[in-house]
Amino acid sequence: MRAFQACDPVATREKTIFSSMKKDVDAIILMNAVEPNLDSSFFYATGIPSGLFEGCLAIIEPRRTEVLVSELEALSAKEARVKVSVFENGEKRGKLMKKKLSRYRRIGVNSTELTHSNYELLKRMKIPGSKLVDISKDLHSARMIKQPDELSRIRKACSIASRACQAIPKFVREGVTETQAAADLACEMMGLGASGPGFESVVAFGSKSAEPHYSPSVKRRLKPGNFALFDFGAKYQRYVSDLTRTFVCGTASRKKKEMHSTVLEAQRAALDEIADGVMGSVVDEAARRVIDGTKFEGLFIHSTGHGIGISVHDPGSISSVVDMELKEGMVLTVEPGVYIPKYGGVRIEDDILVTKKGCRVLTSCSKELRAL
Amino acid sequence: MRAFQACDPVATREKTIFSSMKKDVDAIILMNAVEPNLDSSFFYATGIPSGLFEGCLAIIEPRRTEVLVSELEALSAKEARVKVSVFENGEKRGKLMKKKLSRYRRIGVNSTELTHSNYELLKRMKIPGSKLVDISKDLHSARMIKQPDELSRIRKACSIASRACQAIPKFVREGVTETQAAADLACEMMGLGASGPGFESVVAFGSKSAEPHYSPSVKRRLKPGNFALFDFGAKYQRYVSDLTRTFVCGTASRKKKEMHSTVLEAQRAALDEIADGVMGSVVDEAARRVIDGTKFEGLFIHSTGHGIGISVHDPGSISSVVDMELKEGMVLTVEPGVYIPKYGGVRIEDDILVTKKGCRVLTSCSKELRAL
Repeated sequence: MRAFQACDPVATREKTIFSSMKKDVDAIILMNAVEPNLDSSFFYATGIPSGLFEGCLAIIEPRRTEVLVSELEALSAKEARVKVSVFENGEKRGKLMKKKLSRYRRIGVNSTELTHSNYELLKRMKIPGSKLVDISKDLHSARMIKQPDELSRIRKACSIASRACQAIPKFVREGVTETQAAADLACEMMGLGASGPGFESVVAFGSKSAEPHYSPSVKRRLKPGNFALFDFGAKYQRYVSDLTRTFVCGTASRKKKEMHSTVLEAQRAALDEIADGVMGSVVDEAARRVIDGTKFEGLFIHSTGHGIGISVHDPGSISSVVDMELKEGMVLTVEPGVYIPKYGGVRIEDDILVTKKGCRVLTSCSKELRAL
Repeated sequence: MRAFQACDPVATREKTIFSSMKKDVDAIILMNAVEPNLDSSFFYATGIPSGLFEGCLAIIEPRRTEVLVSELEALSAKEARVKVSVFENGEKRGKLMKKKLSRYRRIGVNSTELTHSNYELLKRMKIPGSKLVDISKDLHSARMIKQPDELSRIRKACSIASRACQAIPKFVREGVTETQAAADLACEMMGLGASGPGFESVVAFGSKSAEPHYSPSVKRRLKPGNFALFDFGAKYQRYVSDLTRTFVCGTASRKKKEMHSTVLEAQRAALDEIADGVMGSVVDEAARRVIDGTKFEGLFIHSTGHGIGISVHDPGSISSVVDMELKEGMVLTVEPGVYIPKYGGVRIEDDILVTKKGCRVLTSCSKELRAL
């Protein structure tokens, strides 16, 4: 058994996970199915920076983490500070699992990222005296507070996205298509060290900027007077950033300027509220109050923010409908917006780290309404 | 109720899905959790080309498909030929689901892509007289045969990857890092119309080419005599391609040439076997026999191929351990390799469409051992 070391990310993770558990479990099993149905907590718990790990699993004890991996992933697994057991095929995986899991009476499972068929597979193993316990809620609580090695990856992802965002006016101009702008943005981020975009970028010109989850079109070109909204992030060693800026092509109308300054003011109001111990709903309300006090009342149609980390929608939310207290060490987006259907939208989004007295903004791109 | 039209992809999908069902169900529910835990069959059945669709679901009847989506996805959903119902929050989703699902007695679920917590949610709804039935196996059978609209997206993804692959010698040369080469490859594909890479590219120089699931490193630079293995694909309207070529930096040694020609011969042997009605294991055996008849015996350490489509590991496999008969309309990879630990590896991979009498190769990049 490995002695606890403060500098060992896996040991720190074990400690954090088990101190978050409200239910009594001997071990937690995190099991991947086939891409895209992978358990992001597998990568959180093990810290393994690369590799696919389909059909692989991690067994987390309070002071010991072991992964059961296929031969294809053995070398990637050995990069992390975990015990590695290798199986050659599905049948051997089954035997290995049964042997390993028979040590435990109460086994925690992450129901929100475990497929139902893998749950049934665990059930069918009929490990004598064992019981499966859903620990997803407590695991998500643990994941909300980012640890130093996670923070350093997120900071890098934020830095890459910020630098790419600052460069947007260099490669996006009148006439370019949304897909070409998205491609150039991806190149810029990968050139700066990202392993890829953190998620499929939203690049929306003109009226399409009013659709928060819009996908770039090969047909839509930037025209004078258009808004150009970029919502994107970088992926770095599995961790992502999530940044939005809205630009204008040429000169902005008075209405567009008003939309932008309203959203910026709303974001400042939200950022000013954030601190350890504050409820997320209070932060959401601060942003919403600004927008609803203008002629853009009712046009901020989503919540103010969400957790980021290993997933672009990590646990955690800044919302009027979720009771969540902000805590030191959480990393969240703050992203108010105003959307006028068929006209256009503005969103300004940064990633922040909650601190004792306030927050630290991890993205660092200028916020004025820049022209393209 | 919509009349069946041959040209309507959603109607064709309904017909295909229900004719594959060995179990009797009134409807099938496909339910997404939070990214990355999305059901790729949701996108297969609805054909919706863009949008995220977290927390959304599709209800498939034999002649009717409906999606229940959040407000953020409503516009993307309307791009497809499906009925769209919109919910404002989780509570309203629950009510809407209960109302819609209460029409059915036997409800099919895709257990391999449904999270256990969503399965429990469906169970807890206690719809009077209803029963949940796992239909994942039959659904996967349906997905293996690609339909015309799917094939046209796959062909485009294959064409983009092939053109990018042909261009590799233009942007990869001695001294470049693996991550930079991966970035340039992504740029090339996105410039050609891909929405992004189909999966995280494997770019492996020198001895690392012997690790099939290797991730590119920022530290490793291409050196004279190195193998340079590229395993990558393009994503186009959610569908992917998957292509591998192995290059050499400068002049190849005799051993490297032998490895390459052996793998090429193995791939040709596999391609020659493929036709409707042939067992996948026969194709695998054809490739393996070539390699095992040389001094590289035993160094082909994975199966010969897998299905591709909406996912890079779509249902279907060309393997010695899977009993699968190839059928006209399946799209699979054919990718033998030889891996010498700590020395290097060669893999040659193409995507093929199974036809009545043989196969059509969808990727079209030269196969000789090209120099960088």
